Amino acid sequence: MPYVNIKITKEGKVTAEQKAALIKGATQLLANVLHKNPATTVVIIEEVDTDNWGIGGESVTERRKL
Amino acid sequence: MPYVNIKITKEGKVTAEQKAALIKGATQLLANVLHKNPATTVVIIEEVDTDNWGIGGESVTERRKL
Amino acid sequence: MPYVNIKITKEGKVTAEQKAALIKGATQLLANVLHKNPATTVVIIEEVDTDNWGIGGESVTERRKL
Amino acid sequence: MPYVNIKITKEGKVTAEQKAALIKGATQLLANVLHKNPATTVVIIEEVDTDNWGIGGESVTERRKL
Amino acid sequence: MPYVNIKITKEGKVTAEQKAALIKGATQLLANVLHKNPATTVVIIEEVDTDNWGIGGESVTERRKL
Amino acid sequence: MPYVNIKITKEGKVTAEQKAALIKGATQLLANVLHKNPATTVVIIEEVDTDNWGIGGESVTERRKL
Repeated sequence: MPYVNIKITKEGKVTAEQKAALIKGATQLLANVLHKNPATTVVIIEEVDTDNWGIGGESVTERRKL
Repeated sequence: MPYVNIKITKEGKVTAEQKAALIKGATQLLANVLHKNPATTVVIIEEVDTDNWGIGGESVTERRKL
Repeated sequence: MPYVNIKITKEGKVTAEQKAALIKGATQLLANVLHKNPATTVVIIEEVDTDNWGIGGESVTERRKL
Repeated sequence: MPYVNIKITKEGKVTAEQKAALIKGATQLLANVLHKNPATTVVIIEEVDTDNWGIGGESVTERRKL
Repeated sequence: MPYVNIKITKEGKVTAEQKAALIKGATQLLANVLHKNPATTVVIIEEVDTDNWGIGGESVTERRKL
Repeated sequence: MPYVNIKITKEGKVTAEQKAALIKGATQLLANVLHKNPATTVVIIEEVDTDNWGIGGESVTERRKL
């Protein structure tokens, strides 16, 4: 019964199909590697504004301008 | 000074009264079971789009269609 | 299928019975307030060392000395 | 390569400049105290509705009315 | 630069090789589905005691006894 | 009443003094930038085993060997 939380920047449009692929892929990964039961594996995707995500001391918004 | 994070799917309308009931209930639970001080108990509720929540390898959006 | 994460300071001994009471109570709270299905409600309790928990700008270890 | 998650209530307007200051400040803090590499330090800021944030058993929305 | 947090119950021994497989697999998943850069993808695995993980209103410790 | 969660790899010894400096610094940062009340600012530090932290598709344990 693993719990997987995926945080990504909100850039371009992430489609429902892509989100479904992340959910399916993460669930299979836990089943393949650790034999975890897919039925109780929870995956939560969070999309974060580029102003709110920092790396290297600056926001992704700033980095994308470079 | 516990910290409680509640994640729920964004389905239908969760009212401010229901959120207040979750906050009050979670705070009382920690006070009752572990004698934690309600004054410093923090509760954060996050509502997640059904496309972004997966269980059993598929999104809640897909499961609701079945 | 809510997800509840409870973080508490590691002080004294929190027994398995107390943890079970938190799990049961949090699951019932979501069922009572939002009619969420208890079968798929996940609760994860994390115990944090008092050196690693800060409030008011100082660690709980320091505050407990006052 | 630290990971810092900052949750704040969504009250008034938090500007991109203020968010950039939080990102820069948190990254420097980890570099100063623990010599962590700023290049791989990730900071994620989450803004939470006042209905969804509770302290002392009630929502921040309610507390702001007092 | 996605961030992936995987929480699993601490049951049996999860080897360094299995953890490496989770890290590699989650990183590839984000690259395959969303073309995210593997170099800045962070994966954090947390192992949780079965007393501290609840589902269906009871701890995993209790469920394993059934 | 911000909430700050800092995750770092467990490498070498992080002293109680260093943790106190992180708590104080993060609390001051929120006070300086957003005028948040230090009294209700919560900081939680989590130390993660290098086997359990991945970046660039491999664990920090592996990267440290290079």
